[in-house]
Amino acid sequence: MAETATLAPAPPTTLGDLDTPCLVLDVARLEANVSRLRARLDRLGVTLRPHLKTAKSVEAGRRVMVTPSGPATVSTLQEAEQFAAAGVRDITYAVGIAPDKLPRVLALRARGVDIAVVLDTVAQAEALVVASRQAGAPVPAYIEIDCDGHRSGVLPGDADRLVAIGRTLANGAELRGVLTHAGESYAARGMDALRICAEGERRAAVDAATVLRNAGLACPVVSVGSTPTAFAAEDLTGVTEVRAGVFVFFDLVMTGIGVCTVSDIALSVLATVIGHQYDKGWILVDAGWMAMSQDRGTAKQAVNQGYGVVCDLAGQPYADLIMVGANQEHGIVALRPGADGALPALAIGDRVRILPNHACATGAQHGAYHVVRGASPTLEATWPRFGGW
Amino acid sequence: MAETATLAPAPPTTLGDLDTPCLVLDVARLEANVSRLRARLDRLGVTLRPHLKTAKSVEAGRRVMVTPSGPATVSTLQEAEQFAAAGVRDITYAVGIAPDKLPRVLALRARGVDIAVVLDTVAQAEALVVASRQAGAPVPAYIEIDCDGHRSGVLPGDADRLVAIGRTLANGAELRGVLTHAGESYAARGMDALRICAEGERRAAVDAATVLRNAGLACPVVSVGSTPTAFAAEDLTGVTEVRAGVFVFFDLVMTGIGVCTVSDIALSVLATVIGHQYDKGWILVDAGWMAMSQDRGTAKQAVNQGYGVVCDLAGQPYADLIMVGANQEHGIVALRPGADGALPALAIGDRVRILPNHACATGAQHGAYHVVRGASPTLEATWPRFGGW
Repeated sequence: MAETATLAPAPPTTLGDLDTPCLVLDVARLEANVSRLRARLDRLGVTLRPHLKTAKSVEAGRRVMVTPSGPATVSTLQEAEQFAAAGVRDITYAVGIAPDKLPRVLALRARGVDIAVVLDTVAQAEALVVASRQAGAPVPAYIEIDCDGHRSGVLPGDADRLVAIGRTLANGAELRGVLTHAGESYAARGMDALRICAEGERRAAVDAATVLRNAGLACPVVSVGSTPTAFAAEDLTGVTEVRAGVFVFFDLVMTGIGVCTVSDIALSVLATVIGHQYDKGWILVDAGWMAMSQDRGTAKQAVNQGYGVVCDLAGQPYADLIMVGANQEHGIVALRPGADGALPALAIGDRVRILPNHACATGAQHGAYHVVRGASPTLEATWPRFGGW
Repeated sequence: MAETATLAPAPPTTLGDLDTPCLVLDVARLEANVSRLRARLDRLGVTLRPHLKTAKSVEAGRRVMVTPSGPATVSTLQEAEQFAAAGVRDITYAVGIAPDKLPRVLALRARGVDIAVVLDTVAQAEALVVASRQAGAPVPAYIEIDCDGHRSGVLPGDADRLVAIGRTLANGAELRGVLTHAGESYAARGMDALRICAEGERRAAVDAATVLRNAGLACPVVSVGSTPTAFAAEDLTGVTEVRAGVFVFFDLVMTGIGVCTVSDIALSVLATVIGHQYDKGWILVDAGWMAMSQDRGTAKQAVNQGYGVVCDLAGQPYADLIMVGANQEHGIVALRPGADGALPALAIGDRVRILPNHACATGAQHGAYHVVRGASPTLEATWPRFGGW
């Protein structure tokens, strides 16, 4: 046995043993983030249907969902299939359905997964009716509502279109409810602005449901959600469920919006120092945009965090140290423009953890989470992560 | 047999059969791009050492390299290991070496792969000497030269540092040569500016090699390269090899720089129309930033292409149609700001191909290339693609 041990490298047990760059997840912060939103939504009397597009991991998803079988939201059929294989049975696929994707939806439903789709046109509703007949059972759909001009959806006041879609679905498919997403809340700053977004999101969904009900159509579910509005809403009368995704990890964009602090951010990229350009005040690390993503979501906020905030191995930020530039596999770390102070004494081979602008984007660049708890460098687990469609 | 065929879905044979979003590669364009650069470098009398970080695919890599065993450049040890497993034997790992990564380098060398590393400090050279003693054979290294202030490397005039690194390597490791990358050429516009970048890159590398040789150190290889300078250089006297990566696919950033045209771009993302917002002039597709990447490299160029240029299934661009916005799984397609004309009549379920800003970044979001040839929608092959470190 001793000989075998010397031949194969020992599995990593601490952050110092991992190959870099890689993704680190502080599960203590994740648990606190989930508890905080759950407690909030319990007080508001609505169900949490977490969006699992952020985590894309069965292990992480289990810690976010209220039960092992859901409810859950997904952004791809790949996510739906992976979480269904792990026992999730109540799934909303929250991107407008393309008719070509219906065979995969039907295959999941045939396996006992209650997956519902989202649509905003009569053409999509007609395709769903055909698919329902093919399946011999109604396929449920949400009508997407446009609450803030962000991207897709029917305007809540467009009664003709809402009712036309609802009546088309009644020909063999199922109108499960209405669904909206306050995507413009990402551009809001401060709690007063966020509360206005949250109330606009609630009102759009409730108004659209009222239009449908007044036309004699059942509309059992009224679904709203975005991480900023989920933390800002003070009244969710008429809403039955809230969807939110990025809250599970939080990130620098959410910090800039004001719904979390830097010390809530559960995700970071572990990187190794590979060089210096002392005359420029640069430290070079082996995490570039391939490891961080190219999300520059804080560039338009009050505090531009570059490609991320640089922390020590325990997850504590160095004062004013950010990743100011990135190539594919090189990150350039420097003091924030205008900052006083000196660069920390980081030598070649030293390791840092870099907090991301956008957890969904940074997570997607990696195949696994290396799980720690709080400031300890000990690895608790490795959770695989999937991508693709 | 007929029964079996109705039970399992037939494998996709054309672009219309694929699940979207996904990555499409026009191998006719790839072959033309490779031929063009090879012919150019043959005339200049230097070797092509292609950078395989763009393709990250054994099948694509074989069509780019001069021989099945190399030479090649990589940006991660994952690439080195994958290409080594496919028979590549001459590899430059062109990111500054972290001492922690040396065991994986030694493991490759022990398998007969001549992998060389890159460094720019005495500390890294000392670590390489230790590793060479451990391996019982010298490990080769290039000294990285900073030709344009882009990121890492020793200034070519810093003779003390160059010679100190070279002499350290001589204590048991191997000085293979000097290597530089004109990263600032990405910001140059027009052939005159690019020729100046190319000459600066050549001169920095040749000057550094001269410093080392004058100190009595052998410096057999003088390696330069970036796609823009590779297509601009008119004289490569003293240079022995050129590295370039993105030329294999080209992209909209390279089009904006002026080293290719839109019709040279071999990579695109296949997407399906999932909605419209007619009052805003928007077409919604199922390719968002997860499929396109968040690279906005053309935003600073003369022509801002948004998240990409939208083409029909045969790869022909629609006039002035670009992806103006992207969420995780939603793309917003619209006419370029200020453009005349009307939106093309694209219905729900119709498919488009979207040319990327940056082929390296968009490719990295996908697990495979779906290979076509020219305007034909017939699939010739599926080439797996890898990621990770």
